[in-house]
Amino acid sequence: MPHFVVTYVHRDPTGWARHLDAHLRWLVERVESGDLRASGPTTGTETQSARWERTALLVFAAADEEALRAVVDTDPYLAEGQVQEMTVTRWDPIFGVFAEESSRAGTGDAELLEHLAELAR
Amino acid sequence: MPHFVVTYVHRDPTGWARHLDAHLRWLVERVESGDLRASGPTTGTETQSARWERTALLVFAAADEEALRAVVDTDPYLAEGQVQEMTVTRWDPIFGVFAEESSRAGTGDAELLEHLAELAR
Repeated sequence: MPHFVVTYVHRDPTGWARHLDAHLRWLVERVESGDLRASGPTTGTETQSARWERTALLVFAAADEEALRAVVDTDPYLAEGQVQEMTVTRWDPIFGVFAEESSRAGTGDAELLEHLAELAR
Repeated sequence: MPHFVVTYVHRDPTGWARHLDAHLRWLVERVESGDLRASGPTTGTETQSARWERTALLVFAAADEEALRAVVDTDPYLAEGQVQEMTVTRWDPIFGVFAEESSRAGTGDAELLEHLAELAR
């Protein structure tokens, strides 16, 4: 199943705090349902923005972008207009912990490397 | 251990193809060593850039940013100048598959939610 990396930027400290608990409970439910594979707050390693903001990165598994959007739209933060910026990036995590959920499921490293080398020729 | 999400943009098709195999073997080694937790190609879900590019997203575990940079610098793509843009974002993946590697390791959902709710007050 395809994976999607979603990032949020929150810019309203009051709204962020008010809906945090509902958002966190939604995260726990989405992990239990299998839609959400990993999630947590992010911090830039460069200079931080002067204005207040909170940021997060979420990794979902979804059949396609439409299915992903349908899930994300149920996040209380989205429903309450508390995500001021969002990015969605499709990700095929062929190495590491998600390998068997990715496009290379069932393919060993040697076979995968040969296949990818072909693509580069 | 802290996690870092690293993104690459490659803009030189010749260099990308030439060093792909060495990069892939490096990825496999880094997964085996535990530094690299997940990695794979990304594609935007919005309109694509007209110019040739390849993009990837990598999730590392590292003691701090210095340790992370020391690992990433050994990627043949970095060593060969084949990463034209790179971002590094610190990530604390407290929900999902990395939870027990994150800052909330050993803390159950109920206790975590209570702790986070305190932070928002």
